[in-house]
Amino acid sequence: MSTNPTALSGTPAEFTESSATALVNARWAQTPDERLRTILESMVTHLHDFIRDVEPTHEEWQRAIDFLTATGQKSDAVRQEFILLSDVLGVSMLVDAINNRKPRGATESTVLGPFHMVDSPVRELGADISLDRNGVPCVVAGRVLGIGGEALPGALVDVWQANGDGFYDVQQPGVQPELNLRGLFTADHEGRFWFRSVLPAPYPIPVDGPVGDLLHATRRDPHRPAHVHFIGGCSGYRPVTTHLFLEGSPYLDTDAVFGVKPSLVRPAVDVDDAARAAEYGVAAPFKLIEFDLVLTPA
Amino acid sequence: MSTNPTALSGTPAEFTESSATALVNARWAQTPDERLRTILESMVTHLHDFIRDVEPTHEEWQRAIDFLTATGQKSDAVRQEFILLSDVLGVSMLVDAINNRKPRGATESTVLGPFHMVDSPVRELGADISLDRNGVPCVVAGRVLGIGGEALPGALVDVWQANGDGFYDVQQPGVQPELNLRGLFTADHEGRFWFRSVLPAPYPIPVDGPVGDLLHATRRDPHRPAHVHFIGGCSGYRPVTTHLFLEGSPYLDTDAVFGVKPSLVRPAVDVDDAARAAEYGVAAPFKLIEFDLVLTPA
Ligand SMILES: [Fe+2]
Ligand SMILES: [Fe+2]
Repeated sequence: MSTNPTALSGTPAEFTESSATALVNARWAQTPDERLRTILESMVTHLHDFIRDVEPTHEEWQRAIDFLTATGQKSDAVRQEFILLSDVLGVSMLVDAINNRKPRGATESTVLGPFHMVDSPVRELGADISLDRNGVPCVVAGRVLGIGGEALPGALVDVWQANGDGFYDVQQPGVQPELNLRGLFTADHEGRFWFRSVLPAPYPIPVDGPVGDLLHATRRDPHRPAHVHFIGGCSGYRPVTTHLFLEGSPYLDTDAVFGVKPSLVRPAVDVDDAARAAEYGVAAPFKLIEFDLVLTPA
Repeated sequence: MSTNPTALSGTPAEFTESSATALVNARWAQTPDERLRTILESMVTHLHDFIRDVEPTHEEWQRAIDFLTATGQKSDAVRQEFILLSDVLGVSMLVDAINNRKPRGATESTVLGPFHMVDSPVRELGADISLDRNGVPCVVAGRVLGIGGEALPGALVDVWQANGDGFYDVQQPGVQPELNLRGLFTADHEGRFWFRSVLPAPYPIPVDGPVGDLLHATRRDPHRPAHVHFIGGCSGYRPVTTHLFLEGSPYLDTDAVFGVKPSLVRPAVDVDDAARAAEYGVAAPFKLIEFDLVLTPA
């Protein structure tokens, strides 16, 4: 916007319910960064429209100010309450969707989440990432493929997950071994990867802050369904940040952060086959979850 | 909204750019407070529309998260950075406008501002509220009237202002006397009030926080034009929170918080009239600002 409604007259323009948005947006006219100006103009337009829609009282607006302030103040080096707010409002997933438009057949993305805070340790294919065996043992196996079906040998598969109690290692220092349930794998010459683990349990997002208060006031469940985090990547392809969701887990319909996509839900299948068990270095019967990662070109 | 799109199928609904808003808003269905649900539905709708409009990258959204977090963390017992943000985005004035729809002729409202933090001392009509005489002396005089023109004897007039350097008493403890440039007056039997003071100077809003960074990045001026704060009230009438703006002040066109309304701008007139000077207990010539407060029925 390049016209300042007050510039011609030299007298203050009338601030009214209907002129407010144009007056405020005129103030961004000197912004050197065009992208910033575009974002601010859109933000003010939608924010004002929201205010005009709900017509908050002074007291209601003060409550909103107090909520936002508390959300900022709850955040620190290991807790980001505004990301949590963005998550429970579906904004994180919407931003993710916008930035990951893909052809049908490609593995869909979902939220990164807050627990990828340490680098996953490099592990050999077949390794057991559950260092304390807390949970029901299982094997996770799949292939990294291009969208055309081509195998991607040497692709990297980064995984991390909660244990059978629903906690990540970083949430239980001294209880879980360091780097428990994390691994960075390199796919074999056919793009295959496999590792041993335990079934992850569902867990609640943190509710001891303003976002928890919001969920409580709106009777929303804070849980996420059982899932394993994945980042799949290969040179020449766009990496995918996603989850494998466990079929039959509670909360698949009510994931507090809207991360579930039907295409990402997989069963843990009971396999009673000695040959396949041997393939994965386990004893039959065993639980197997199969999950392929299909990447699009960079 | 009472239909949960996931309720019938029992399988997770597809979260897409177009379904996102309905899916998130369905989650408010169990909110006991209907007003809260209405506000949240509108907020999510406008917030998602904003996201779809600007299509932020993950990095841009992270910058927004960081900005909001810093805004919360800058706030403390004496500084409210989110109110300041609301002010510079014109939201405070928009909320004020919505809550103060009035007939033509009534004194228009404007923002309360952050400096009404102490109760104004009761003062006699004609008192000098400038305890240290820092600034150009003046007289402020007016009447409190009902919208029909009726005088309102005994009306209360609460005033506070910055000094000739652009600072409020609470910003300069030890420099300005306590309760400098504040007064609570009771209008006389004809609804008149008058007091001595000094001409206030324009001042910048605080720029040592995220809001200051925003103004800097957008090349916006942080100043407010010279003004005197008023709250006028009388039993049976709605109180009005407003400013008197000094005609000719710089920044009337660019008030950082959009508080200026043309109807609130008044000149400081040089009066060389011994009789009128005596009326106000000053020597001629003197500077006079006249400002009536016109209230609407409660
Ligand atoms: Fe997770
Ligand atoms: Fe002020």
